[in-house]
Amino acid sequence: EATTTAKPTDLSGYTRVKQELVAPPFAPVHEQVATGGPKIIEITMETEERLMVVDEDTGASIWALTYNGSVPGPLIICHEGDMIELTLRNPVDSMMEHNIDFHASTGALGGGGLTHVFPGEETVLRWKATKPGCFTYHCAPGGAMIPYHVTHGMNGAVMVLPRDGLKDKDGNPLRYDSIAYIGEQDYYLPMDENGDYRQYEVAGDDYSDSLEAMRSLIPTHSVFNGAVGALTGEHALKANVGETVLMIHNQANRDSRPHLIGGHGNYVWESSFSDDPLQGMETWFVRGGSAVAAMYTFEQPGVYAYVNHNLIEGVMLGATAHFVVDGEWDNELMEQVIAPREFTT
Amino acid sequence: EATTTAKPTDLSGYTRVKQELVAPPFAPVHEQVATGGPKIIEITMETEERLMVVDEDTGASIWALTYNGSVPGPLIICHEGDMIELTLRNPVDSMMEHNIDFHASTGALGGGGLTHVFPGEETVLRWKATKPGCFTYHCAPGGAMIPYHVTHGMNGAVMVLPRDGLKDKDGNPLRYDSIAYIGEQDYYLPMDENGDYRQYEVAGDDYSDSLEAMRSLIPTHSVFNGAVGALTGEHALKANVGETVLMIHNQANRDSRPHLIGGHGNYVWESSFSDDPLQGMETWFVRGGSAVAAMYTFEQPGVYAYVNHNLIEGVMLGATAHFVVDGEWDNELMEQVIAPREFTT
Amino acid sequence: EATTTAKPTDLSGYTRVKQELVAPPFAPVHEQVATGGPKIIEITMETEERLMVVDEDTGASIWALTYNGSVPGPLIICHEGDMIELTLRNPVDSMMEHNIDFHASTGALGGGGLTHVFPGEETVLRWKATKPGCFTYHCAPGGAMIPYHVTHGMNGAVMVLPRDGLKDKDGNPLRYDSIAYIGEQDYYLPMDENGDYRQYEVAGDDYSDSLEAMRSLIPTHSVFNGAVGALTGEHALKANVGETVLMIHNQANRDSRPHLIGGHGNYVWESSFSDDPLQGMETWFVRGGSAVAAMYTFEQPGVYAYVNHNLIEGVMLGATAHFVVDGEWDNELMEQVIAPREFTT
Ligand SMILES: [Cu+2]
Ligand SMILES: [Cu+2]
Ligand SMILES: [Cu+2]
Ligand SMILES: [Cu+2]
Ligand SMILES: [Cu+2]
Ligand SMILES: [Cu+2]
Ligand SMILES: [Mg+2]
Ligand SMILES: [Mg+2]
Ligand SMILES: [Mg+2]
Ligand SMILES: [Mg+2]
Ligand SMILES: [Mg+2]
Ligand SMILES: [Mg+2]
Ligand SMILES: [Mg+2]
Ligand SMILES: [Mg+2]
Ligand SMILES: [Mg+2]
Repeated sequence: EATTTAKPTDLSGYTRVKQELVAPPFAPVHEQVATGGPKIIEITMETEERLMVVDEDTGASIWALTYNGSVPGPLIICHEGDMIELTLRNPVDSMMEHNIDFHASTGALGGGGLTHVFPGEETVLRWKATKPGCFTYHCAPGGAMIPYHVTHGMNGAVMVLPRDGLKDKDGNPLRYDSIAYIGEQDYYLPMDENGDYRQYEVAGDDYSDSLEAMRSLIPTHSVFNGAVGALTGEHALKANVGETVLMIHNQANRDSRPHLIGGHGNYVWESSFSDDPLQGMETWFVRGGSAVAAMYTFEQPGVYAYVNHNLIEGVMLGATAHFVVDGEWDNELMEQVIAPREFTT
Repeated sequence: EATTTAKPTDLSGYTRVKQELVAPPFAPVHEQVATGGPKIIEITMETEERLMVVDEDTGASIWALTYNGSVPGPLIICHEGDMIELTLRNPVDSMMEHNIDFHASTGALGGGGLTHVFPGEETVLRWKATKPGCFTYHCAPGGAMIPYHVTHGMNGAVMVLPRDGLKDKDGNPLRYDSIAYIGEQDYYLPMDENGDYRQYEVAGDDYSDSLEAMRSLIPTHSVFNGAVGALTGEHALKANVGETVLMIHNQANRDSRPHLIGGHGNYVWESSFSDDPLQGMETWFVRGGSAVAAMYTFEQPGVYAYVNHNLIEGVMLGATAHFVVDGEWDNELMEQVIAPREFTT
Repeated sequence: EATTTAKPTDLSGYTRVKQELVAPPFAPVHEQVATGGPKIIEITMETEERLMVVDEDTGASIWALTYNGSVPGPLIICHEGDMIELTLRNPVDSMMEHNIDFHASTGALGGGGLTHVFPGEETVLRWKATKPGCFTYHCAPGGAMIPYHVTHGMNGAVMVLPRDGLKDKDGNPLRYDSIAYIGEQDYYLPMDENGDYRQYEVAGDDYSDSLEAMRSLIPTHSVFNGAVGALTGEHALKANVGETVLMIHNQANRDSRPHLIGGHGNYVWESSFSDDPLQGMETWFVRGGSAVAAMYTFEQPGVYAYVNHNLIEGVMLGATAHFVVDGEWDNELMEQVIAPREFTT
């Protein structure tokens, strides 16, 4: 065992706190600028296997594999230099083994090598957040089970903030009013010979059919927060003109290219918080297996669609969310000078 | 209506000018460094639905949906702080509703929400270019019509130059001798059971077949400026050694990775003109739903192929353009020391 | 002929040296910081067509087209301002014509236009490395033969180091202890009606079947260094805690997104060595038709998987390599506080 001869850690300089995880698209209570010294942040996650409807219109469903019941799993937030101490539990009535690989961590396959929990087991892993940025975490049980679990929803994001908060390229502070935490999930749902989505009795039953569908590399769905429409209509995100939103986009497997229709990425961190943010982007990029952050301050009221701008994926595969923004229209930025009317040549 | 209570705009500080739009790969007459104060730039675009041959060899064709008859639509150029005032007309004999979403603009779905014109209608939209960069514009009528119109050619680019022109990372001016405006278009042409491309009577008739083909996410064609060979042979682009070309690549839907065979991207703006250009790139990236600019100064004569460097897409799906460059060969940069000859071991 | 009137080059300032090329994943002997003046680096490559097993489990094989017998071809290293003088030989018993296009070079389609060698022919090409970075080279005989040769393994990388070596954004030197040179190869292997991989008698026999498979844009395999498992098990890469590895990832055709499971890209040069490296990345991006470099200093012992983080491609299509790292575990970075155990609620 690699760890047997390792020196014990000195934790005397750390303060212990608990972080209450919440369901997406929301963020846990947190400070943008760290106060006090480094913390050990205790969190708990439970693996949950549940039948989820992916698209009500077609009845497409999946035995999703989740952390805490949501796709994506909950957003975790800490500051550089903090430690995350995770208790991971796999309920006794689960069908499958799970674990967790934190891209933000260092060693042991991101913790994947130290956290294999079978149904009825728990484990505790502590790791230090040494690199600032948004990072994916995901289940990685080994072999083909890795993409299988990841494409069944078992992934989420950690945001490791710089202790003194986010900054522009000149070092000026950048602050947000709210976080929109959006996980894009590519599903590869097996179909029968009639083109109907297959249904399964229990988690894991779709394993060989799923692998065959996955091999095509073409998802049947690419949705935000687990299902078509999870962030539209009554579930749309809300903001006001003048407010700044930090959009955290997690995609644990497949490239994406988010775009805010009618807005921009004023500041976009595609790589990490160690690099200056990119500015004024129309469409940014999520390398498959990444979480990225993009900041925007709304200047106009109305509905903004946040999409994967492969518009086939955005519209037909499901990758659309809505922001509904209140406030006063600014005719300087845009004006409908003449409303649509008949014309003669 | 969002706009009813909005304050009227004060346009007194602006000078009105008209911009004559031209067909790709050319750029409208423009200044690289703005002179005088901010302008209101009046442009007119007409939606045109036309049967286009995509590939003469196979007879593949499409009822293209276009702005001003070309794929991509015309390049629009302004400076940061200018306003674009677009008159958009949909001829009375059109089959479909169209509108326009400018990624460069702010609010109302990029203007898409304010510009729905049915056959026989016109509208006028004015918006302020507050962010410098190259930006896609495209039709976005709603729902699956969005990717349908975009993948039928209905997209183009706006370049918003900094008022004092382009600069390198040290603030030195960067100037170009010409612009090559290249729109990459992914088409998803329906085939019959024999693998022959289907033909349709009128725009819109291919709607359900197209949606089925689009769902595969695999285009049948990915071409520059509307058709295979639109920028090769007699249509090749021209330059001289020592001249600097600004290549503007628009891809409104699908990722691309342009490469200039035998040359480089000396300066590449993948994100916006607010960021320093990337330097010395072999292959750059167009996030699907973006326009990017790359600058190169030719150092050798000869033919340069500009390709999407997924070479299957570049060669077999059509994404190839040619630059024919005149001038004197530089043996220091490259020399054929021994021409191919037989050898014996 | 473009070169006939060109002035002869003055080579008096250059020292001639030979570079002995070695098989991947290894790097030729080289200096990280150049000593002395510019060099003419003489290298020799022979085109070799050979039957390679791609996946022992399924028996999938390909008549690979190679430089010096390996997929990828050998890594070439020089410094900015040096010249590469390549002797390229095509053995008399080859079936096909080959040439070479260096993305690092300038003019004549990257040398492709000057190096067409038929079986039994040799040629010598000299070119000057004016741009620092990692660059792809590949065969490009023309037309559909271009993607055919490239997707049959005929590609590799050149690293052009700055004369004073690699640096971080503040100008501090960055040095590596070893290079891991990894070529990702997308194969499109034809199958018969039963889904079995076809076998062919000789190089080139799979041409029309391959083109049909390539047109799908979906590879059957995406492997590191030519075959599934070429860099795992007994072929895994080795390092020690505290050592720094420079991972050079070459992908001549198709986008990739490398990730080091349990580690990071501390410094990543996606564009070129002219730009500051990106920092602290979880997953970086290889624009199809690019070579990139990523630097990491190992902090923990154990096995690290280096994968294309489209995990379907990483696990099911073959894009996985392993680093086996020796050293002492650091409990501060990560600790298994409670090993998996049963729990009761
Ligand atoms: Cu799992
Ligand atoms: Cu991962
Ligand atoms: Cu339209
Ligand atoms: Cu758009
Ligand atoms: Cu070849
Ligand atoms: Cu190339
Ligand atoms: Mg580390
Ligand atoms: Mg049915
Ligand atoms: Mg990230
Ligand atoms: Mg704005
Ligand atoms: Mg036929
Ligand atoms: Mg752009
Ligand atoms: Mg050059
Ligand atoms: Mg069989
Ligand atoms: Mg490179």
